[in-house]
Amino acid sequence: MFLKNLFSPLKLAAAIDLGGTNTTLALVDQQGKLHHRSIFSTKDFAAPVDFVNSMSGAIEKAIRELGDYNPRLQGIGVGAPNSHARLRVLEQPVNLPWSGVVPLAAMFEDRMQCRASLINDAQAAALGELHFGDGRLMDDFLFVTLGTGIGSAMIANGQLIQGQAGFAGELGHVIMEQNGRACNCGRKGCLETYVAANGLVATYKQLRDTDTLESNHALNAEGVFQAARTGDKHAIAAFNSTGEMLGRALANSVAISNPAAIFLFGGLTQAGDFLWRPVRQAFEKNLMSIYRSHVQIRPSGVPSKEAALLGAASLIFND
Amino acid sequence: MFLKNLFSPLKLAAAIDLGGTNTTLALVDQQGKLHHRSIFSTKDFAAPVDFVNSMSGAIEKAIRELGDYNPRLQGIGVGAPNSHARLRVLEQPVNLPWSGVVPLAAMFEDRMQCRASLINDAQAAALGELHFGDGRLMDDFLFVTLGTGIGSAMIANGQLIQGQAGFAGELGHVIMEQNGRACNCGRKGCLETYVAANGLVATYKQLRDTDTLESNHALNAEGVFQAARTGDKHAIAAFNSTGEMLGRALANSVAISNPAAIFLFGGLTQAGDFLWRPVRQAFEKNLMSIYRSHVQIRPSGVPSKEAALLGAASLIFND
Repeated sequence: MFLKNLFSPLKLAAAIDLGGTNTTLALVDQQGKLHHRSIFSTKDFAAPVDFVNSMSGAIEKAIRELGDYNPRLQGIGVGAPNSHARLRVLEQPVNLPWSGVVPLAAMFEDRMQCRASLINDAQAAALGELHFGDGRLMDDFLFVTLGTGIGSAMIANGQLIQGQAGFAGELGHVIMEQNGRACNCGRKGCLETYVAANGLVATYKQLRDTDTLESNHALNAEGVFQAARTGDKHAIAAFNSTGEMLGRALANSVAISNPAAIFLFGGLTQAGDFLWRPVRQAFEKNLMSIYRSHVQIRPSGVPSKEAALLGAASLIFND
Repeated sequence: MFLKNLFSPLKLAAAIDLGGTNTTLALVDQQGKLHHRSIFSTKDFAAPVDFVNSMSGAIEKAIRELGDYNPRLQGIGVGAPNSHARLRVLEQPVNLPWSGVVPLAAMFEDRMQCRASLINDAQAAALGELHFGDGRLMDDFLFVTLGTGIGSAMIANGQLIQGQAGFAGELGHVIMEQNGRACNCGRKGCLETYVAANGLVATYKQLRDTDTLESNHALNAEGVFQAARTGDKHAIAAFNSTGEMLGRALANSVAISNPAAIFLFGGLTQAGDFLWRPVRQAFEKNLMSIYRSHVQIRPSGVPSKEAALLGAASLIFND
């Protein structure tokens, strides 16, 4: 123990991945190694102040338990939906139990007397890819998360592009079909309504019910995947349609940002060739000729449960 | 003269705006002031080496003529179509009298023994806006040139985004209509085929000839503008259609890049409300609600004949 304390201090960032269902807290070192991880049910925190107090207590306890390694907390990085990075607040986080504007970074700074940063979840995962994943050797890439909805982030010149208000990268809200499906954003035909988990399910139901006049059953993306695996032609067609639309949207985004690669991340990417083949086919087909065979669409190079944590930690180490 | 030479040296960049018809050479100081300008017919230069020799001679002569001001040439910046900024070459410049790959930056460096940089024309004009125009106070904006074709460039985090190969910003090659008009790029439905000068003319002919079965006359964008001014309903409808498509494409690009503003530049922007009104209407209508009334579409803040020169000069001063 005496010897361990002679080691140079172990610089750590507390990283919080705040999701609608679960929140994960980790202590991360500069090499991206996790020294602690704990998971909480987000719904247990009735108010933001409860959340900040619980997380802070858990951080302090985890730091104490690492006492032998001479730990030094450098700051707290939070990845969360609806984050406004420049204002350092959560804005109307519809998937979280709280409403209004939550100044989460300032609350952590007050409680913990250290620096805190906030970033949206897709941007956090993209930073994880940039600093600790296969994006390490790239200056320019796109990072797309396919979950219930779509998130995305652009890395250019080796930096995260946040735009004026921090909302850059909303590929999910590019309009792909005029007068198309109604989107939560109030408009119609957004990519997200076709290509994320909910969009896949909607397409499947549409194809199946047109054919059989069946009523709509409750169903999720995993169910469509299982149906595709058993050879259900409507499920396979739904994946083809989803992949085609996504490939087309990604080809258009390449014309704008000229990335070295596009990383896909999130639950839907587990669907294997049902998704990847039509995505890649439509992508190559719609790409400008100068880009054909030059821009890879590939799975994220960081473990899915660590990407946002690593990115949140990088806010502290790379600022 | 003796006193003038006691002044601190006048640091100058030679800026070259290389176009299909004309080439403009200027000497630019760090404040963006032009100390010399001369115009050449690009077609007069049968080979790249003739071009480099003539420009170099003209630069040397102009520098000599400013001798009293103690001029110091810092480098040569060139804005040209089909430039590959990272490789410092022109690639297959279809609108120029030369073919193949032209290592223009290296040729200038050999001849003039100073630094030379190369950038594509739309990116050069965007840099002019960033360093000397209304983009000076913005970190994030889009810059779109509406000429015969469309060029565009993205400024983010206060920097030009060039992408992996330097081709970022090709908004003109976002596919707006599947199986739409044939584009020079080999694909179909690119924004450029509808929205640039040639696209406007094509739309006008389509609308008019459907109505009258007239054969196609030779016509240019200026002709459509003049027709619109005299109340020609097809010309007005062609502008509306062009503006609507452009506004929609710009709204989509905002979802990706979250700019503070979008600058429009180039000949077509002279068409006044025939163009600007439908662009702005379609833009606001298709924008995500968080952006409505927050992102201005506005004319470029640099004189059209100086933008690319100023941007080319900024390559030397801001590197």
